[in-house]
Amino acid sequence: VNREPLSPTDRSTVQRGKKRAVTDRAALDAVLDAGLICHLSVIVDGAPIVIPTGYGRDGDTLYLHGSSGARSLRTAIENNICVAVTHLDGIVYARSVFHHSVNYRSAIIHGRAQVLTDDNEKLHALRILTEHLAPGSWTHTRPPTRKELAQTSVLTLDLAEASVKIRSGPPGDDDEDIEDNTAWAGVLPITQNWGDPIPSPDLGPGWDTPAHVKAREWKGQPASRQEG
Amino acid sequence: VNREPLSPTDRSTVQRGKKRAVTDRAALDAVLDAGLICHLSVIVDGAPIVIPTGYGRDGDTLYLHGSSGARSLRTAIENNICVAVTHLDGIVYARSVFHHSVNYRSAIIHGRAQVLTDDNEKLHALRILTEHLAPGSWTHTRPPTRKELAQTSVLTLDLAEASVKIRSGPPGDDDEDIEDNTAWAGVLPITQNWGDPIPSPDLGPGWDTPAHVKAREWKGQPASRQEG
Repeated sequence: VNREPLSPTDRSTVQRGKKRAVTDRAALDAVLDAGLICHLSVIVDGAPIVIPTGYGRDGDTLYLHGSSGARSLRTAIENNICVAVTHLDGIVYARSVFHHSVNYRSAIIHGRAQVLTDDNEKLHALRILTEHLAPGSWTHTRPPTRKELAQTSVLTLDLAEASVKIRSGPPGDDDEDIEDNTAWAGVLPITQNWGDPIPSPDLGPGWDTPAHVKAREWKGQPASRQEG
Repeated sequence: VNREPLSPTDRSTVQRGKKRAVTDRAALDAVLDAGLICHLSVIVDGAPIVIPTGYGRDGDTLYLHGSSGARSLRTAIENNICVAVTHLDGIVYARSVFHHSVNYRSAIIHGRAQVLTDDNEKLHALRILTEHLAPGSWTHTRPPTRKELAQTSVLTLDLAEASVKIRSGPPGDDDEDIEDNTAWAGVLPITQNWGDPIPSPDLGPGWDTPAHVKAREWKGQPASRQEG
């Protein structure tokens, strides 16, 4: 697959904080693959709506899905949408109020959403979406019925027009504030991980927590991002 | 303050998953107060844009801020915007692909953004925003200069038209799948907390990590949400 650099169209060119813009596809893939949900924005009746939803990535294609009845998804079809995936890595305590900030990794994708109509394409997309949300579940659990498939809408979005922004490291204070030394400065990292699996109260007999759940690794937050 | 129930306008009425809709203001406040960043959606050149940004709440007013030069913020002024705050609490492993889900708490607010022009109002808003992001920092650090104030835009959004959705607890599998007992089912919680503070490499001598950083409590995720 020939993967172009991220598109430099006007709206995907990072306007603020240019030093934080990252323009290679590996960075985009890393931010997307480390996330679990995205925020999808569509225009409904002339006003923007933003909703959290699941996603999955297959090469240069982003899949989004939801109920066939969801108005936001229906509105998105063949219209411009925007998708953001954000990781919050820490709070940046500066010597001044003004330079307070957050460490984060963020991907923003623009484009026109297409809807999948072919059942085989939908099944492929649902496998990608399921394995993103719950790796191992596609083979462990009952596959979608024809009826369930019909109740599910899957949108695709090309990863062609996208931007990635990353902030990491210590505060960027003014020299005078550093010299004055009248305030503490540093980063308070945010840590995320999996808790202990909670079996469903109606789980039948004979189940240990399967390995794909028990041994799931946290991909959200590289430890190296937390270095000061 | 007379606080009305959340507005039942068409776009703020939860269309999907009605059983998950919550309509009291205490739930809205709780979701907002537990968050750190929001996703702000605006329309730019006819297409939706969604960006992660900081926020703070003061009663029924939501404050958003950013650089005065940021196009998205300039576009938002006196236009319709949408703001989402989302907490992802866990992955719901069902017996079927179809019933896989996530546990989450989500607030979505619609309205017209106003810009603050009065310096005292801006300072008040910045105090709210700063204390939301970094409680204790407003008094510990250097306050904004007149120039810094001018470089900062603050938007306000009335918390009048909003919806809250919460999903918690075990999967909602079909009866036949529960009886078949051919897959594990349960919840894999996501835990978040503060890591160890990382002092800035250029921090001057004589500093222990101050209490407002070291003793900061994690507000993001009530443990009770993790019960199966």
